[in-house]
Amino acid sequence: MSDERLERYAELVVRVGANVAPGQIVDLRGLVEHAPLVRAIARAAYTAGARYVETLYNDAHVRRAMIEHGPDEALTWTPPSLKTRFEHLADERGASILVVGDPEPELLADLEGERVGRAMMLEVQEIFRRRVITEQLVNWTIVAYPNEGWAASVFGEPDVERLWEAVAYCVRLDEPDPVAAWRDHMATLQNRSKQLNALDLDSVRFRGPGTDLTIGLMPESEWHAAAFTTSWGRPHVPNMPTEEVYTTPDRRRAEGRVRSTRPLALTGAIVRELEIEFEGGRAVSVDAASGADVARAEIATDEGAARLGEVALVDGTSRVGRTGLTFFSTLFDENATCHIAYGGGVANAVRGSDKLSGDERLALGMNESVVHTDFMVGGPEVEVDGFTVDGRTVPILREDVWQLTGT
Amino acid sequence: MSDERLERYAELVVRVGANVAPGQIVDLRGLVEHAPLVRAIARAAYTAGARYVETLYNDAHVRRAMIEHGPDEALTWTPPSLKTRFEHLADERGASILVVGDPEPELLADLEGERVGRAMMLEVQEIFRRRVITEQLVNWTIVAYPNEGWAASVFGEPDVERLWEAVAYCVRLDEPDPVAAWRDHMATLQNRSKQLNALDLDSVRFRGPGTDLTIGLMPESEWHAAAFTTSWGRPHVPNMPTEEVYTTPDRRRAEGRVRSTRPLALTGAIVRELEIEFEGGRAVSVDAASGADVARAEIATDEGAARLGEVALVDGTSRVGRTGLTFFSTLFDENATCHIAYGGGVANAVRGSDKLSGDERLALGMNESVVHTDFMVGGPEVEVDGFTVDGRTVPILREDVWQLTGT
Repeated sequence: MSDERLERYAELVVRVGANVAPGQIVDLRGLVEHAPLVRAIARAAYTAGARYVETLYNDAHVRRAMIEHGPDEALTWTPPSLKTRFEHLADERGASILVVGDPEPELLADLEGERVGRAMMLEVQEIFRRRVITEQLVNWTIVAYPNEGWAASVFGEPDVERLWEAVAYCVRLDEPDPVAAWRDHMATLQNRSKQLNALDLDSVRFRGPGTDLTIGLMPESEWHAAAFTTSWGRPHVPNMPTEEVYTTPDRRRAEGRVRSTRPLALTGAIVRELEIEFEGGRAVSVDAASGADVARAEIATDEGAARLGEVALVDGTSRVGRTGLTFFSTLFDENATCHIAYGGGVANAVRGSDKLSGDERLALGMNESVVHTDFMVGGPEVEVDGFTVDGRTVPILREDVWQLTGT
Repeated sequence: MSDERLERYAELVVRVGANVAPGQIVDLRGLVEHAPLVRAIARAAYTAGARYVETLYNDAHVRRAMIEHGPDEALTWTPPSLKTRFEHLADERGASILVVGDPEPELLADLEGERVGRAMMLEVQEIFRRRVITEQLVNWTIVAYPNEGWAASVFGEPDVERLWEAVAYCVRLDEPDPVAAWRDHMATLQNRSKQLNALDLDSVRFRGPGTDLTIGLMPESEWHAAAFTTSWGRPHVPNMPTEEVYTTPDRRRAEGRVRSTRPLALTGAIVRELEIEFEGGRAVSVDAASGADVARAEIATDEGAARLGEVALVDGTSRVGRTGLTFFSTLFDENATCHIAYGGGVANAVRGSDKLSGDERLALGMNESVVHTDFMVGGPEVEVDGFTVDGRTVPILREDVWQLTGT
């Protein structure tokens, strides 16, 4: 691993991903195993003019100790310091950078799945959903750090260099001018969102092996690329890589069943062949070849966790998909193919939602939950159609090829 | 490194050091390089019944980025989350465990010394001094984790196993029953504190090469071993190892000069051959062969930082001293020989201080500062005498041999 590559990556994360503004506080989080990138990002953030970089390392083994040996109340408890941390970050219009790339994606697989799925800092999740996702006060991004354990999960051997090459390709760090490459890439995705918005869709349907699911949209549902802007006008790219166009569906309108097409790595457990049946928008059965208890416990977190909060389309041109790899990291795997999320809706994909109260958003049909878990449902065998408000059926994806043209 | 040794060490830290009580919150801090011990302590704490273990990893490289590239205000700023963290810990009568053992003791040596010495979270220091040291609300301990970088500093090569053996010997982990060994050891030190208290000393004098310093005590100064008890009655051992008996001197009465007998590792810089001259209790000149700017900046932090807050006696029976090593870690080096500290006094060594206000403590002569930095002033060439209230001179240490007998 060259230090120069690490520094270039950190620059890209700070300048394009979070787009840190001079004078901002920067919330920087990762696992202890991510220290080299965390350090490089801290340097890049201060160089970009950050007022303060507040680093917080998570440790999956300490979390394991809590789930294995801690009392029941510990599982969902939020230390007051973390409430202060995120409320202050939002109050100050700070930036936030999360580093992922799990060195041990199945660390918790031998523990009681119900406890693993329930282990979630509910109040932090609520603050994050409210102030970052809904109020859009923070310019944030999620990026990955290639590490030995993660490489071993992907390749069966700790070939970190090979993982670095894959990650660099996916985040366009292989381009001579990555910043320009990102600008062009986001323009392509934004064009797709315009094509979809022009159709005036009422619902989308996924059909493939084990899957026939129709998801209703709200009249206010807008398709977007993941090119975000904070409420105070700061653009940022929340995921690096990103290959999707997404919207927020009507939480009351999902009918049918869906089978995941890629494994879903929840923190510490892998859910394989997830199958969910929806009636009236609600998950009425949840099965899986592994990790079913973890997924079921997460879906039982609150009322909204059993309903959909996102539907996203990705085609075969995705750099992530083209690697042919399963990353066991949602940041990558969700950008390899189409995905949907159970849990809270994404406010910026709902027209006018910034002027609505929570009750008004619910009345529109937007879902509310502290959970938001994406899982992969697309691929060459899955056809995606759109049904328009005026009654037409429009093919959107066939054999991973984008069917729409124009603008 | 055997996992079994690590687990035994973590047990000792939790049971004897912090003495975690069932139902307590545990504040657990270390560097990212200390993750293996941090994880073992988290497991041991939950097994001992901890309600929640809140881990916080510090990263010296992120701190370096702040000092090197951050704005001036960042140096002394305290993120609100940390104020909440420590106030809540004290409110809840939690336990606290800090892991030390610096893998890069000279990481900051090439930076501007004045900035390095000034870099200190003033509000956290203040909260810690007030609620932990003065109000004694938290059962806390400081312990060390042998790691490669630290071993390289001590031995010139990363011989972690050799460092583990030295640490295990110092913390009595080599004993068949370390808990019993600690009980006996603390009784020996407590016996010494009784001998000193029986003398009714008015001052102590250190004489050796470059040193002739007389430090006045208050009538309320009591000698103690580092066997602490919280205000709510929980015993704990704040340092592992500990070999000292200490008291809090009169901040107005230090006269003469002192030369440090061991290097002092401040975070990121090593102060060698520190020489301080005191007049009327106050440091009027500060010199050093290296790190003088760092020490001077620290001593300029507040009014009390230039005055003494502790005087501690250690003889040649110290296990730390017997290793013959310089650890470049104050936790160890201060327990190899006599030391004094510039900065805040230790409330539990001042009789009746728990019933006094801050102003009343100052009026007695106890020092107040957010700083408390121990440095080593003893050794075989340094004679220590006590002057009693009734005018006698009593030899206390000669050639590192304890001169008092009785009880």
